[in-house]
Amino acid sequence: MIRALLVTTALVVAAPVAAQPAGPVLFDPVGFAAVRGAQPPLFAGELTRVKALVEAAMRAPIDVPVPKDPGGGYTHEQHKRNYTALYGAGLLYRITGDARYADYARRLLLAYAQLYPTLGPHPAKANEAAGRLFWQSLNDSVWLVYGAQGYDAIRDTLSPADRKTIDDNVFRRMAEFLSVGNAASFNRIHNHATWAAAGVGMTGYVLRDSELVARALKGTDKSGKAGFLAQVDQLFSPDGYYTEGPYYQRYALQPFVVFAAAIAANQPELGIWKRRDGVLLKAIRTTIQLTYDGYFFPLNDAMRDKSLKTDELYQAVAIGYAATQDPSFLSIAQWQGRSTLTPDGIAVARDLAAGKFKPFAFPSQLYRDGPEGTRGALAVMRSRQGDDAAQVLVAKNSAMGMGHGHFDKLNWLLYDAGKVIVTDYGAARFLNIEAKDGGRYLKENESWAKQTVAHNTLVVNESSHFDGKWKLGEEHAPRQLFFAGDAPTKVSTAEMTGAYPGVTFRRTLVQLPLGKGSPLVLDLLRAKGDKPATYDLPLHYAGHIIEVGFPAKSNTAARPVLGAANGYQHIWVDVVGTAGAEGAALTWINGGRFYTYRMLPPEGAMLYLGETGANDPRFNLRREPLLLQRVAGKADVTFVSLLEPHGAYDPAAETTVASQSQVQALRHVRGSDGDLVLVQPRTGAPVIIAIADDTDPNKTHSAMIDGRTIRWTGHFAHIGGDAK
Amino acid sequence: MIRALLVTTALVVAAPVAAQPAGPVLFDPVGFAAVRGAQPPLFAGELTRVKALVEAAMRAPIDVPVPKDPGGGYTHEQHKRNYTALYGAGLLYRITGDARYADYARRLLLAYAQLYPTLGPHPAKANEAAGRLFWQSLNDSVWLVYGAQGYDAIRDTLSPADRKTIDDNVFRRMAEFLSVGNAASFNRIHNHATWAAAGVGMTGYVLRDSELVARALKGTDKSGKAGFLAQVDQLFSPDGYYTEGPYYQRYALQPFVVFAAAIAANQPELGIWKRRDGVLLKAIRTTIQLTYDGYFFPLNDAMRDKSLKTDELYQAVAIGYAATQDPSFLSIAQWQGRSTLTPDGIAVARDLAAGKFKPFAFPSQLYRDGPEGTRGALAVMRSRQGDDAAQVLVAKNSAMGMGHGHFDKLNWLLYDAGKVIVTDYGAARFLNIEAKDGGRYLKENESWAKQTVAHNTLVVNESSHFDGKWKLGEEHAPRQLFFAGDAPTKVSTAEMTGAYPGVTFRRTLVQLPLGKGSPLVLDLLRAKGDKPATYDLPLHYAGHIIEVGFPAKSNTAARPVLGAANGYQHIWVDVVGTAGAEGAALTWINGGRFYTYRMLPPEGAMLYLGETGANDPRFNLRREPLLLQRVAGKADVTFVSLLEPHGAYDPAAETTVASQSQVQALRHVRGSDGDLVLVQPRTGAPVIIAIADDTDPNKTHSAMIDGRTIRWTGHFAHIGGDAK
Repeated sequence: MIRALLVTTALVVAAPVAAQPAGPVLFDPVGFAAVRGAQPPLFAGELTRVKALVEAAMRAPIDVPVPKDPGGGYTHEQHKRNYTALYGAGLLYRITGDARYADYARRLLLAYAQLYPTLGPHPAKANEAAGRLFWQSLNDSVWLVYGAQGYDAIRDTLSPADRKTIDDNVFRRMAEFLSVGNAASFNRIHNHATWAAAGVGMTGYVLRDSELVARALKGTDKSGKAGFLAQVDQLFSPDGYYTEGPYYQRYALQPFVVFAAAIAANQPELGIWKRRDGVLLKAIRTTIQLTYDGYFFPLNDAMRDKSLKTDELYQAVAIGYAATQDPSFLSIAQWQGRSTLTPDGIAVARDLAAGKFKPFAFPSQLYRDGPEGTRGALAVMRSRQGDDAAQVLVAKNSAMGMGHGHFDKLNWLLYDAGKVIVTDYGAARFLNIEAKDGGRYLKENESWAKQTVAHNTLVVNESSHFDGKWKLGEEHAPRQLFFAGDAPTKVSTAEMTGAYPGVTFRRTLVQLPLGKGSPLVLDLLRAKGDKPATYDLPLHYAGHIIEVGFPAKSNTAARPVLGAANGYQHIWVDVVGTAGAEGAALTWINGGRFYTYRMLPPEGAMLYLGETGANDPRFNLRREPLLLQRVAGKADVTFVSLLEPHGAYDPAAETTVASQSQVQALRHVRGSDGDLVLVQPRTGAPVIIAIADDTDPNKTHSAMIDGRTIRWTGHFAHIGGDAK
Repeated sequence: MIRALLVTTALVVAAPVAAQPAGPVLFDPVGFAAVRGAQPPLFAGELTRVKALVEAAMRAPIDVPVPKDPGGGYTHEQHKRNYTALYGAGLLYRITGDARYADYARRLLLAYAQLYPTLGPHPAKANEAAGRLFWQSLNDSVWLVYGAQGYDAIRDTLSPADRKTIDDNVFRRMAEFLSVGNAASFNRIHNHATWAAAGVGMTGYVLRDSELVARALKGTDKSGKAGFLAQVDQLFSPDGYYTEGPYYQRYALQPFVVFAAAIAANQPELGIWKRRDGVLLKAIRTTIQLTYDGYFFPLNDAMRDKSLKTDELYQAVAIGYAATQDPSFLSIAQWQGRSTLTPDGIAVARDLAAGKFKPFAFPSQLYRDGPEGTRGALAVMRSRQGDDAAQVLVAKNSAMGMGHGHFDKLNWLLYDAGKVIVTDYGAARFLNIEAKDGGRYLKENESWAKQTVAHNTLVVNESSHFDGKWKLGEEHAPRQLFFAGDAPTKVSTAEMTGAYPGVTFRRTLVQLPLGKGSPLVLDLLRAKGDKPATYDLPLHYAGHIIEVGFPAKSNTAARPVLGAANGYQHIWVDVVGTAGAEGAALTWINGGRFYTYRMLPPEGAMLYLGETGANDPRFNLRREPLLLQRVAGKADVTFVSLLEPHGAYDPAAETTVASQSQVQALRHVRGSDGDLVLVQPRTGAPVIIAIADDTDPNKTHSAMIDGRTIRWTGHFAHIGGDAK
């Protein structure tokens, strides 16, 4: 009946239909029964955790304070505690059948029914759209997402009078406020609007109010120009990549999958999981893919310590498993050691305990950016599958990613042997730590973390990409020209135009197996400018320097600062050096392995070794080492670099092998229509990498090196050595 | 028969007795049988490891090169590989009965029998006593310790002719060379001489040569002034503490326990395990005690990454278990995940698999230094027993510890929640890493790591204790005046005279429980000088600064160096500040917890925040933060400091609690004959710590604070709060 009603979401049904059944529409009641008796470990753990939380709330008097404080303040935290307790109480009631939980939810909601109608805009409202319970409406939306689910679980236990009071004075009012009452935010194509749509839409299902559902799906005018479906269509790429990057993809994912599950349950005919070739399921898998050892690649504004062990992913994994029955989700849940108390989470706990899990595959893969997949990409190259110690090379060729994006076009990261080797600073922020600007983004996030020099990519004239203006950055995306992820030798080539006026730069990154060890990483970066400029190529590495392989002058008496602005003011200079004809090298150790970074910078290049932390009076920045190659007064430049993992250091056995580079020489020649790079190992045949300017797979090219003529077909070729 | 002969070790028996049985005297053959059939995991692991190593050696041709290279060079490493393979082959022969192993050992030893008689002093000999196979005789001793054991295991398989050749041309010659041929080193009271004694003595048992045994036990003149027994009597304190510190105690331990086990087997009447109230067994246990989470306290010259997972400790744990049957050794073996292939190690593997292990107790304890236990002590205060997350406070009140000792009298370290919080740099060395001076101690070990300012203790006039002269340091040891380790509140008081002319300083460190969390650490340091001086008190902490709690001027344009010598030349200065009447504070975060260091420095004190790494052109030093309190122009000073662990940061749950100090105030008053320190928590009653100058447990004292007269008896009292 409800279904029939909702099929035609276009027609407006203003008032709720009073006579309808009140049972749950967001959870399948049968699903809760799945674990009566037997309690699989994950479920038992969640039950204990949520019971402790809810019982504690139930012991305290109902506390629904008049909103007053901004984020972190008392009333803010209390309203958060309330929706968490409401949500938990609802689930506990369904699982245990204990009426105390339902009654607590009732009393809590009746208190909100008293307070809510009296509220105007939040007194602490700031720039963001103001909420009523919270300083920003985003938090009100989150309240509604959790609240609607908690309410759904107990609504059928209420007297008609209580139910009407709560329906009308809490949920319908909140949904009205967050939709028509807040239309500008509600109709945006932005993840904040997704939270609002999810809250309003789920409320619609719970109240059997098809008008609310229609607004949620298609925007306040129900034209479909806004609303959840438009967000699904526009906020993810065809590969399920969310443009802000992995850290915010994790955060944005929750309202998408939670509401999608509700839609699938109540309007299966919309085929939400199939929409855009299953983009929402791709989004769940892609979120999991963009990690190393469970930790998200810290691209754009991101906390480095954020892993798959987070509420959004407990939800997403449970919902993804319910929607697909893909057993590889179970191995992720196993790594998380957590699940949810929803029927979906209960199924995860049960099937994991039953040993149904399969390993989650981590292939080398390209994740295109942009709604049509045309705004660059994230290229992820993995030396091995599902192995924590595998090497992962990430080429960040994605688009700006809105206001949390960094000015780091064609940046790269490297993980090896379980450690971060070539790093991204992530965000300058101490989440939830009051003494650090209340846990908000620090000004060093603008002055350092977002700046180009804080990344491993090209800087022109000590200024950042797009002159540090993200809206300008939205107008120019990189182009992913080539990607090969199937053979042992993996390749990504991308090009960027518009980061700097008159400058185009192109970068090829190669994950190059050589011998038995971890692959080498070859980096060919070519820039063409319309006038002479200063080109800097920084490398942010993690480890302790073992050997400085170039003539260097060290700053001993005092340590100067590298520059004045755009991040340069935060760099202490330890060493200034030069590269010879043979190039230069730097060797460091990280954990049990050595890394040698071998450079063939443009002629006349200077080399700097430095450390972050200058002009940082409040110690807001981590102190991290960096290397910078600089060449001045040239229009066109080519940087060729090779990063080589080698050797082993074992403190227990007191043994060290191959602490010195196993590469004897690195050479580069520019041909007529491409580049050749020769890697000569200490033992064995040289390896030649050929990279054509053209990406046509059928065009043939040739160039000479060491008196040898090399001919190849297509954009890329790997010649000699144990060619792969 | 052999026993009877050896009882009278004094009488000289020049030639070996030919007619004796040739079976093993260092290993009980029966012990090897213990695992025939069943293979407990630890044993199986060792068997696989040693088989792989020995089989590889057996596949290669016998390689006994003419000695040429110094440490790390080819001939050096090859002779090391040979004794390892010889030792392994002997054990494998006994375990498997496979004659191939015995034959390999025979062929290898016959090659040595060819080479060894031809050798003179090693061509690469340096300052250390020259060896013949190796550049220093120490390595020759180690060869003999392993070689004698390997030989013992297979000697009864040899023809009389081969046996005589190897007896005479390898082992007897080596033993002669290392004893009478090298008398000066052999007769030292030093762990190098212990290796020699062990090698010579074990050879004596294997060859049934009582003369060699006698030299090993009592020195070349057999007077007992030198030799193993004298070393046992003089190199360990009555608590089994080895004066060089934990890192070298680990290293020194092996020849002691290996030779002791041989003595116990062949001359039980010497009661070697009972000698000095069982000091060798205490030494094994003390070595294990001086760790946190399995890692040795990095006192004096020490590598921070050295843990109980090391060959010396696999041996020591096996031998200790065999000698005592104490099941708590088994839990250490379990943590190590390793054992040995000796009968002792086999018993460990078997009993561990049988579940006989008990937890190893880690009490708070005083480890006295010096042969009579009168040369200071190491005070170890643990907040809980056998808990990796417990807090451990280490007061380093021990003596100089010879040439590897640091100038750090009354230094302290702190571990909390599984992390190092107040640090010791350890040694400036990259063990076995060729590019770092061949893995030897770096010059920064002298210029930084050993210097006083590199530690958490008092520096006078920017010079180091004993003016940086360790031989002078040997003349002055601290006095441990008081230790209380049984109550929840733990206390150590020690005094140092002679570190600086005319200056005496005394330090009380208190591990002070307050509320539910980890204990606080109160530090009262008083110095009395005969003239005005500059007093510095550094704190080397690990973590990221959250809040600088004092007026501070930051170095932005350039970063100056703190001083010119004695370690000060390695310190960059970030911030210079001052302390107010209320004192000063610094808060940092490390892992999931916050730490606030609250200071009441002497009036007019300056505060410095800095980082190591200045004047370090080769990047030999780790970059680590430090805080330094400085007061100039005073003769007598008192530094009162309180380190407070607080709060919790959980990145997964995105929650933070108590990121700010829970202490409201810290006050100090000096009474007529003691000090009072008042700690006022934000909530709850103040805690008053009373410390009398006198350590007499019966004397009563009184002093006034906040208008309150405090009376107490004995050196220390804890008044108020939840007094413990």
